[in-house]
Amino acid sequence: MPKGFQANALACGIKKSGKLDLALFTSSLAAKASCKFSANKIQAAPILVNRFNLRDSQAFRAVIVNSGNANCFCGRQGIKDAFQVAKALARTLGVRKNEVLLASTGIIGRRLPVEKIQQALPKLVDGLSLQGADKAKRAILTTDTFSKTLTVYVTIGGQKVTICGMAKGAGMIAPDMATMLVFLFTDAHILKSALEGALRICVEETFNCITVDGCMSTNDSVIMLANGSAGNTLIKTGKDFNLFLHALKVVCLELAKMIVRDAEGASKFIQIKVDEARDFQEAKKFALAIANSNLFKTAAFGENPNFGRIVAALGSCGVDLKEEDLKVRVSPLKKKEILIRVSVKRGKSSAVVYTSDLTPEYIRINAAYN
Amino acid sequence: MPKGFQANALACGIKKSGKLDLALFTSSLAAKASCKFSANKIQAAPILVNRFNLRDSQAFRAVIVNSGNANCFCGRQGIKDAFQVAKALARTLGVRKNEVLLASTGIIGRRLPVEKIQQALPKLVDGLSLQGADKAKRAILTTDTFSKTLTVYVTIGGQKVTICGMAKGAGMIAPDMATMLVFLFTDAHILKSALEGALRICVEETFNCITVDGCMSTNDSVIMLANGSAGNTLIKTGKDFNLFLHALKVVCLELAKMIVRDAEGASKFIQIKVDEARDFQEAKKFALAIANSNLFKTAAFGENPNFGRIVAALGSCGVDLKEEDLKVRVSPLKKKEILIRVSVKRGKSSAVVYTSDLTPEYIRINAAYN
Repeated sequence: MPKGFQANALACGIKKSGKLDLALFTSSLAAKASCKFSANKIQAAPILVNRFNLRDSQAFRAVIVNSGNANCFCGRQGIKDAFQVAKALARTLGVRKNEVLLASTGIIGRRLPVEKIQQALPKLVDGLSLQGADKAKRAILTTDTFSKTLTVYVTIGGQKVTICGMAKGAGMIAPDMATMLVFLFTDAHILKSALEGALRICVEETFNCITVDGCMSTNDSVIMLANGSAGNTLIKTGKDFNLFLHALKVVCLELAKMIVRDAEGASKFIQIKVDEARDFQEAKKFALAIANSNLFKTAAFGENPNFGRIVAALGSCGVDLKEEDLKVRVSPLKKKEILIRVSVKRGKSSAVVYTSDLTPEYIRINAAYN
Repeated sequence: MPKGFQANALACGIKKSGKLDLALFTSSLAAKASCKFSANKIQAAPILVNRFNLRDSQAFRAVIVNSGNANCFCGRQGIKDAFQVAKALARTLGVRKNEVLLASTGIIGRRLPVEKIQQALPKLVDGLSLQGADKAKRAILTTDTFSKTLTVYVTIGGQKVTICGMAKGAGMIAPDMATMLVFLFTDAHILKSALEGALRICVEETFNCITVDGCMSTNDSVIMLANGSAGNTLIKTGKDFNLFLHALKVVCLELAKMIVRDAEGASKFIQIKVDEARDFQEAKKFALAIANSNLFKTAAFGENPNFGRIVAALGSCGVDLKEEDLKVRVSPLKKKEILIRVSVKRGKSSAVVYTSDLTPEYIRINAAYN
């Protein structure tokens, strides 16, 4: 964890398996926050409470995350429950209740066991430490098979700045929002607007460029805290901003790729690069049309060079396309990593999307998950 | 087959299995045609040639269909090949080359074996008969496990009018176009504009309301011929039109449902009804969001009452939606037929969409198909 941050996790009994299911991240200094949430119209209660707190407060002290329950589609009770968790945590930490951010992941439509969480808070806060991140990164997982973290250091104005990222996600992963749960912590001293700008650019080009199953979650959140304890001169624009942006993008891109590598049941890691589109959004639209085609994903699983499915997917996304302008290249399918390169001869922009194949194991996992 | 129509089929060697792969339908009287083709921007050569012939001619005599090869993404050669088939058939039948319609289904990106088709034409034409429809309905299939036909009789102006429909399709089935191959033959005497209108309404509410895998084909075609041999007074508007429309809709809806029942690898037949939407298109959008969600389809396969996935899918389709207005009812999942009823409290319109579950068998079929 970067300077001034601590973490801890424990099993409070939300997961029947008895695995870690409650994580806490705190900052000793008041931190600026920048967040991106799901574009789904049905939003989980923790997101609604976060939006309220982000309007209400400029300083943040803690992020509490539970796995095993999404606290979504639980009506007003769900929102009350989320506020209750924030309030109880704030009291235990001795901070204000609007200085807390929340995230939940797990089953939709079941009430959050607030009592279990409240009872666990004293022990959770007591055990906060730098090393607690090791437990916290595991406590945020659901169907994930490995934990996903990356820490990057960058020197800005002579000071070492640290950016630490932590992600969960393996299914219900689709773009056009901040897909999955991601927590980013930095000790950088940075202007709020610069932090917001850097995160917006990074999310659009990394987390919003991955898809596992085309299914948009109700709980997706990217929560970033910057507490300024690195002591660097304030990052605003120019060279310092670019250094910070680049470092942040490395963290986001690698976390995004880890999510795809851990995609539920996947046997392939697939990179789809579309060139010569009119703009980035158009290139991304083409790439996502391929990435979300069940027939393409199934062909990839079967190592079946049925490239007609790529062509059919490209033609179905609503963008004009001439058959004679289309070039499709596919790397050998026997390998675990596959590269699809498409050229559409419409302009000069490119995009890269990462996805996985669709396998019987994905179905097995999701036929049983409840 | 209705009065004045004949059919035949044979195996000309396109399918390696030696199964029937070439079907012919003819009308002894010049027939009016109405067609709907895929909205995919990449369109197969037979569709391009049909569009040309539909502009060029008012009368049609024959529809020739091959399975095992889509004649798509084959460039100018593919279009030449399709014209060549039309020309050779016209010569064999003694009709004009623009009085012929074409359809192909099968693998994309491989050249159509025109010679095999040409060599088979004399025998194909020789064997034309009323009973030939029995072979033709099998020759148009690919991964289908059963043939799909329905004939409906309706009395219009004292005369018996027959509408006969024939469909193929089990995968690469998604709406917003005429999904799959459908052939409709009627002996009705009907005004061209009335025929077009009836078909447009029926396709929108039947074939465009089914989805198997959300993948839009390049070859989808609904081809309808009306040859007037029933001898009824010309159908224009009013009561006669409504009788005809109703009969046609029965045929289209039943064929559409047969396609879903034969969905690749499916174990469930799922009906999704959305009520209280602002209009039909909005209701359909909600229903399709559920129907195309891999997580919903996988839960249906697993008989897993994870209704949060229905909520997440509804929220992801871009239409505004309030959690408190949403009602979701799910019939018992153990049964083969499942009914999902959703109410969104936004208006008075409804739509029904039919779909299947997503199973390991779907993946097995499509991992191997080439």
